[in-house]
Amino acid sequence: MARDCIFCRIIAGEAPADVVYRDDAVIAFKDIMPRAPVHILVVPLEHIASVNDLAEKHAQTVWRMFRVAQVVAEKQGIKSTGYRLVVNNGPDSGQVVFHLHMHLLGGAPLGPFGAYRRI
Amino acid sequence: MARDCIFCRIIAGEAPADVVYRDDAVIAFKDIMPRAPVHILVVPLEHIASVNDLAEKHAQTVWRMFRVAQVVAEKQGIKSTGYRLVVNNGPDSGQVVFHLHMHLLGGAPLGPFGAYRRI
Repeated sequence: MARDCIFCRIIAGEAPADVVYRDDAVIAFKDIMPRAPVHILVVPLEHIASVNDLAEKHAQTVWRMFRVAQVVAEKQGIKSTGYRLVVNNGPDSGQVVFHLHMHLLGGAPLGPFGAYRRI
Repeated sequence: MARDCIFCRIIAGEAPADVVYRDDAVIAFKDIMPRAPVHILVVPLEHIASVNDLAEKHAQTVWRMFRVAQVVAEKQGIKSTGYRLVVNNGPDSGQVVFHLHMHLLGGAPLGPFGAYRRI
């Protein structure tokens, strides 16, 4: 656990979150600034800063994040209507919390996902 | 291989693409309608329609997609400046090709990634 990491504090029960799923590898909770009607963060319990820090030993953790995304999408009723998975890594992406997380977004038609201006 | 799938046709060498990486599990090529200065699609060779169709047997494939994203991000010079990984699934997400793929976007500050309107 990283003491200064808000997601580690949520995982440890030291900070509040609207948790929708948890198992022995992954937690999922609502984003506090939702960008879609359904906006949930899928987060490994292990503190991994970003995609750049993933290694072979995390293969199963990465898969479990996708599996949890499937489960949560179904529970939220957006399995068929559709959803977007987003993982931001580093400055240009807008990553704010440096504990790996996957955004699960849905519940309405989603917009662009690239640069501000079409190139 | 799915005969009517454009990504399967690219993988089979029957359709053109600007391929930047290929191994025994994953191919990566430039998006023909780039939404950022760097916009590459990371695609499993196996025809899997979408996230909804992923199962435990695909765990290693999912990991390999992330590993290739790391490699390609480094080759493209955006490992440190940052990048976004996006996987769209179904209607609300705007998924167009129903062969699983991960967008790798970077090379400029990226914009919003949720619904059209902030909710």
